[in-house]
Amino acid sequence: LTDFGWKDGYIGAVKGAILSVNSRCQIVDIAHGLSAHDVESAAFILGQTCRFFPHGTIHVAVVDPGVGGTRRPVVVTTSDYLFVGPDNGVFHLVLDQDDGVRAYELVEDRYFLSPVSGTFHGRDIFAPVAGHLSRGVLPHEMGPQLDSGDLTRLSIARPVAGEEFIAGEVVYVDSFGNLVTNVSRQMLTEFAQDSEVVVEIEGEQITGVRCTYSETGKRQLVALWGSGGFLEIALREGNLASARGWRKGVVVTVRRES
Amino acid sequence: LTDFGWKDGYIGAVKGAILSVNSRCQIVDIAHGLSAHDVESAAFILGQTCRFFPHGTIHVAVVDPGVGGTRRPVVVTTSDYLFVGPDNGVFHLVLDQDDGVRAYELVEDRYFLSPVSGTFHGRDIFAPVAGHLSRGVLPHEMGPQLDSGDLTRLSIARPVAGEEFIAGEVVYVDSFGNLVTNVSRQMLTEFAQDSEVVVEIEGEQITGVRCTYSETGKRQLVALWGSGGFLEIALREGNLASARGWRKGVVVTVRRES
Amino acid sequence: LTDFGWKDGYIGAVKGAILSVNSRCQIVDIAHGLSAHDVESAAFILGQTCRFFPHGTIHVAVVDPGVGGTRRPVVVTTSDYLFVGPDNGVFHLVLDQDDGVRAYELVEDRYFLSPVSGTFHGRDIFAPVAGHLSRGVLPHEMGPQLDSGDLTRLSIARPVAGEEFIAGEVVYVDSFGNLVTNVSRQMLTEFAQDSEVVVEIEGEQITGVRCTYSETGKRQLVALWGSGGFLEIALREGNLASARGWRKGVVVTVRRES
Repeated sequence: LTDFGWKDGYIGAVKGAILSVNSRCQIVDIAHGLSAHDVESAAFILGQTCRFFPHGTIHVAVVDPGVGGTRRPVVVTTSDYLFVGPDNGVFHLVLDQDDGVRAYELVEDRYFLSPVSGTFHGRDIFAPVAGHLSRGVLPHEMGPQLDSGDLTRLSIARPVAGEEFIAGEVVYVDSFGNLVTNVSRQMLTEFAQDSEVVVEIEGEQITGVRCTYSETGKRQLVALWGSGGFLEIALREGNLASARGWRKGVVVTVRRES
Repeated sequence: LTDFGWKDGYIGAVKGAILSVNSRCQIVDIAHGLSAHDVESAAFILGQTCRFFPHGTIHVAVVDPGVGGTRRPVVVTTSDYLFVGPDNGVFHLVLDQDDGVRAYELVEDRYFLSPVSGTFHGRDIFAPVAGHLSRGVLPHEMGPQLDSGDLTRLSIARPVAGEEFIAGEVVYVDSFGNLVTNVSRQMLTEFAQDSEVVVEIEGEQITGVRCTYSETGKRQLVALWGSGGFLEIALREGNLASARGWRKGVVVTVRRES
Repeated sequence: LTDFGWKDGYIGAVKGAILSVNSRCQIVDIAHGLSAHDVESAAFILGQTCRFFPHGTIHVAVVDPGVGGTRRPVVVTTSDYLFVGPDNGVFHLVLDQDDGVRAYELVEDRYFLSPVSGTFHGRDIFAPVAGHLSRGVLPHEMGPQLDSGDLTRLSIARPVAGEEFIAGEVVYVDSFGNLVTNVSRQMLTEFAQDSEVVVEIEGEQITGVRCTYSETGKRQLVALWGSGGFLEIALREGNLASARGWRKGVVVTVRRES
């Protein structure tokens, strides 16, 4: 998972550096088309995606605007996975999802390429470290354990739930133009009780939350349960973000139908 | 083969769901940059591409605007391959290319992720089904056989061949800006007999069909035998679609030189 | 490494053709988003990337505007790698980096797909040849050895080093908008002796060359040692190429601080 794109050779160099340590690694591309330096989106994608991978998967996430600075290179372990990348918030949702998180600062440079550049730790640190982890080197051999409470968190908007409403917001816009909010299915279900709900966004009202696009007409505005467990707003077979100009941060409120 | 792009984590989740069933699967990316919901292009690409893969390959094609609706999730088998995806026309050309097609509706949810979302069957149905197929589960174990004649076809334009002309059209524009027509090499060869042909598109005439770009000058309009076995129109080392604004559906006629 | 993009099925067909020869091949995508026909960028990326791959890697590079013409299909071997592609300059930097280069023209069509199209040698020649090489067929079995001095070179700008200055230029702009110059770290270090240097580009002056982005303020212009060993000019967490409109070919001069 990187913001390297497919125009340059950066992701190629990362893969080569992994395979040079362990040529039997199976490398799986998640997404390389993230906006440059967009740590928040990387954290969101990682949080939504990682749990579908097999136990033991090593996730390498390199969206790293602070490369070479004071942010620490880390390996984070959960009950299922290992994560390698910069401690800049990219692991925020991973940390939230697991009780057994441990983290180690990557300091043992025998597991790095030599020399380490000041601008490309994806290739020089994170890739070879992932290769060594895949060969069985243990995280604690790579550096001192960190207090996982000290790992960098992002200031991610949380919805406000009142008696009469939930006020959330759009936290991610996908490439289909669908708007993902921070209102979880569980929160909304508890709020709704047995009432129908009305979702309001930028003055437009949508009654009811659907399970599939097919429950509405083409190009119609629809609120539905997204595949990640959160309320989404979309245009069926259309690009809502382009059509309305709505972006991350737009407020979404939910009320019970009166 | 999907329209998920590389900006979101969707293709990552699909791969994870495959590997969670069979971690030894070798996953090969074909194309993820298709226009959203463009089933016709997906069918074209699949029809042009699948035959270059080894016998036994499982092709997963997810361009699925009707996800969660009435379109059926299916596995289609041909003499060489297995195909997994929605029965929405994406397998149209595959069905045309093979006599021994069989199809099964995917209903046995023990081969699905649980729960199945209403908006992401690529991850929740097609990926794990592909994983189970790769482990040797047989298609008929996954659901009832369908009449392959009942599978969804697209209304794809076919060329009209008269005594004096062939009238075809552009059916695909690739990312180099080359225009692929629906006039096959075989049809055109039979029509031409031993005469030279003249290809006309939007009022411009091109004499002769070349085998390679190098038989014409740079930035020159050229008609040539495309790599998929169809007549193509291109600008050598240029982007014809951008330069002239020609798109899918533009008429292409072929006559014998008089 | 291709300019095929992710919208069409071309890269899929190439992979299928490799796997049809050797289904146990591990195929690694380097970059497919290069500008169409941009042989210079392909040569740059290959030169910067290939050395991070394991010994024995077979690199397939298909940016091939002259496909079907007089340019020769070749396999090039160095002390570490094999390279397969057109002899059009794409291997320029590879040839520079190694003393033991050998090259062979690909003429033995038993290693090709049949028939070979005139427009898609990536699929019909380079892919199956790579597959056969991975199975142990030796390069000299594929065609006659060529004089490696006769292989096509690009006319790549080299910096001019005077007593008082180095005059280089921008040779690559990456997708982050960073400008990579042709001034190597070694050349600049020898020039600078123990003096601080001043880098000038389009009338703007930058004092000193940094090791990391973090040594400058956000959105500040910075000269730094790029990860490929060359002087780079960038905006920290910004896109310099977009912000200033600077492109490949822009002159960069370096002087000692007076």
